[in-house]
Amino acid sequence: MATLVCKACGERFPDTDARWRCGCGGVLDLDFTPSLDPAEVAGRPATLWRYREALPVPEGAELTLGEGFTPLLPVEIGGREVLVKQEHLAPTGSYKDRGAAVMIALAAHLGVSGVVEDSSGNAGCAVGAYCAKAGIPCRIFVPADNSPGKLGQIELYGADLVAVPGSREDTAAACMEAAADTFYASHVYMPHFFHGTKTFAYEVAEQLGWRAPDTVVLPAGNGTLLLGAYIGFTELAGMGLIESVPRLIAVQSAGCAPLAAAFEAGASVPAEIRTSPTLAEGIAIAAPVRGADMLEAVRATDGHFLAVEEDEILAAFRDMGRKGYCIEPTSAAVIAGAARYVRSASPDEVVVTAFTGHGLKAGDKLHKLSGV
Amino acid sequence: MATLVCKACGERFPDTDARWRCGCGGVLDLDFTPSLDPAEVAGRPATLWRYREALPVPEGAELTLGEGFTPLLPVEIGGREVLVKQEHLAPTGSYKDRGAAVMIALAAHLGVSGVVEDSSGNAGCAVGAYCAKAGIPCRIFVPADNSPGKLGQIELYGADLVAVPGSREDTAAACMEAAADTFYASHVYMPHFFHGTKTFAYEVAEQLGWRAPDTVVLPAGNGTLLLGAYIGFTELAGMGLIESVPRLIAVQSAGCAPLAAAFEAGASVPAEIRTSPTLAEGIAIAAPVRGADMLEAVRATDGHFLAVEEDEILAAFRDMGRKGYCIEPTSAAVIAGAARYVRSASPDEVVVTAFTGHGLKAGDKLHKLSGV
Repeated sequence: MATLVCKACGERFPDTDARWRCGCGGVLDLDFTPSLDPAEVAGRPATLWRYREALPVPEGAELTLGEGFTPLLPVEIGGREVLVKQEHLAPTGSYKDRGAAVMIALAAHLGVSGVVEDSSGNAGCAVGAYCAKAGIPCRIFVPADNSPGKLGQIELYGADLVAVPGSREDTAAACMEAAADTFYASHVYMPHFFHGTKTFAYEVAEQLGWRAPDTVVLPAGNGTLLLGAYIGFTELAGMGLIESVPRLIAVQSAGCAPLAAAFEAGASVPAEIRTSPTLAEGIAIAAPVRGADMLEAVRATDGHFLAVEEDEILAAFRDMGRKGYCIEPTSAAVIAGAARYVRSASPDEVVVTAFTGHGLKAGDKLHKLSGV
Repeated sequence: MATLVCKACGERFPDTDARWRCGCGGVLDLDFTPSLDPAEVAGRPATLWRYREALPVPEGAELTLGEGFTPLLPVEIGGREVLVKQEHLAPTGSYKDRGAAVMIALAAHLGVSGVVEDSSGNAGCAVGAYCAKAGIPCRIFVPADNSPGKLGQIELYGADLVAVPGSREDTAAACMEAAADTFYASHVYMPHFFHGTKTFAYEVAEQLGWRAPDTVVLPAGNGTLLLGAYIGFTELAGMGLIESVPRLIAVQSAGCAPLAAAFEAGASVPAEIRTSPTLAEGIAIAAPVRGADMLEAVRATDGHFLAVEEDEILAAFRDMGRKGYCIEPTSAAVIAGAARYVRSASPDEVVVTAFTGHGLKAGDKLHKLSGV
């Protein structure tokens, strides 16, 4: 197991507390020392639990729907080869399954009687599915103006949907209130979620023969994959399993780019911005809770932020489709970022990115967006 | 490579002919002798191409979107544990990717300038995606009354949709006419498709430590998975890699059950039946081209056919959802069959089945079907 540490005041809590925030209001990280022997990993089943000694969940508490160990395939992006993790082929259709598997495994291990979460998107699906698998009752708070069609997958998993009138912030507030006496399975606050998504880094390293790529291009919304990958690569370097942490290129939509703006301005916290509608709904987070961490991680790796335009997102979406990959529009924003990045990269640089979510999530919109 | 053999008249053709039917009108099989060394397979990437010596495509002609080697997970079905291949996590969302990968790899190897296919469902998606990957222009013939929403995935892959007025048979006829001078990438006629789906059997055997299960429960529409699995298990037994071919339990929807009826009657060809609407659209095939083969295969393994009712299909769909698995209604019919089968199975029997297609394919219908 591991210890929860407040990033603001430094207070420490055992992770059996299932606490999602410090009493001072600070966000929590996990103080945890992984260990891993690549030779032992090699023969294990192809899920993220092959790295179980590096995961903050006791042996025997594993919870699986078959998540992890997604293929790493060469795809032509921006005129050259980029290696792309096929995260959209995860059990519920996004990389969020990594975080949910580890976080809900902890919840089940602690014997909680229910969880709450606020997300009408991929995180809600992932938490709903893993709670179903674990047999834990789950309430998902969503804005009341969500279309029912979008929520069918969460409903199918048997989660109890709580429609909250008002803004996205009102939804979050209602969920936090419920979290006073229920396990808050938050993909934003719970550090265990990030210790699930960190397996992205472990898999990339293993699939490259226990080497790190030069550069990784990832989305920057709430940072669940970006910060998870940063934790993972940092742990791998700490264990001597890779030489160094790769450069992190973080992609936002120009329609909602508080971190790209802060990065440009040399600031250490997200900028206050005006937003405009974007195809990349999944990363349109105006005030990311862990924004400062993302700025720090990207700077620490000599990386940078990119803000991609709507026409770039749509072009990347169609380009990937025409190459045989059906991905979410939000996922296409990351590919647009990768395409822009590689134009100035050195030709021998090993660049890794991800298809973060399945195109089938876009439902009927696929027809309209396909460009036919 | 391999030799095409007419099942009706015995005439033989080299498979470089890319022929989909004999001059006599007979359906073609493949005369092909696989070889495989499990020790060599072990260290290879987790796609179906790990069995390349057993596939009728030359080395170097492999075509991949990351298909195959899906997880084999224990799931509680009908009150006991059944092992379920997670085929819905394939690149385009169904097991059809296995067939399309091998068939379109052949087409690309032969240097064809285009392909045609008739399917508005999972086969159309799979053929569209692999043609996109191979850079082969692809025309998919679909009934004109299909809703555009259902076709978005095929459109995204850049396939040229040809809407044919009239019945499903009119669509097939129009496609066959086009096939006179174009490679017919048919999931029904082309035997290479079945030599792709046979990798299902190879994977099950490998994942069980090179052992066959006692029983396999699979859908029986056009029989692409059932006959593929039969070929695969038969080849494995022939090579001495498993002891015997498992019992095949073939599932139809009671709304369209020409094979279950023929099996009951002791007939060797599909029965003429009346159909009624069914949730299991994907296996509602009233006159399956390879129906006689399916009857023969099931009888040869001491198996039988099951016809499941609509209420069983819906119950299985919801039950799997509540356990964390988002599958297609057609896929739920197979699970309903497995649930019915295991009630009379011996407790120590190893039973394998499959989630054949992703629930997200059902789009907006998920909300209605979820039972909330």
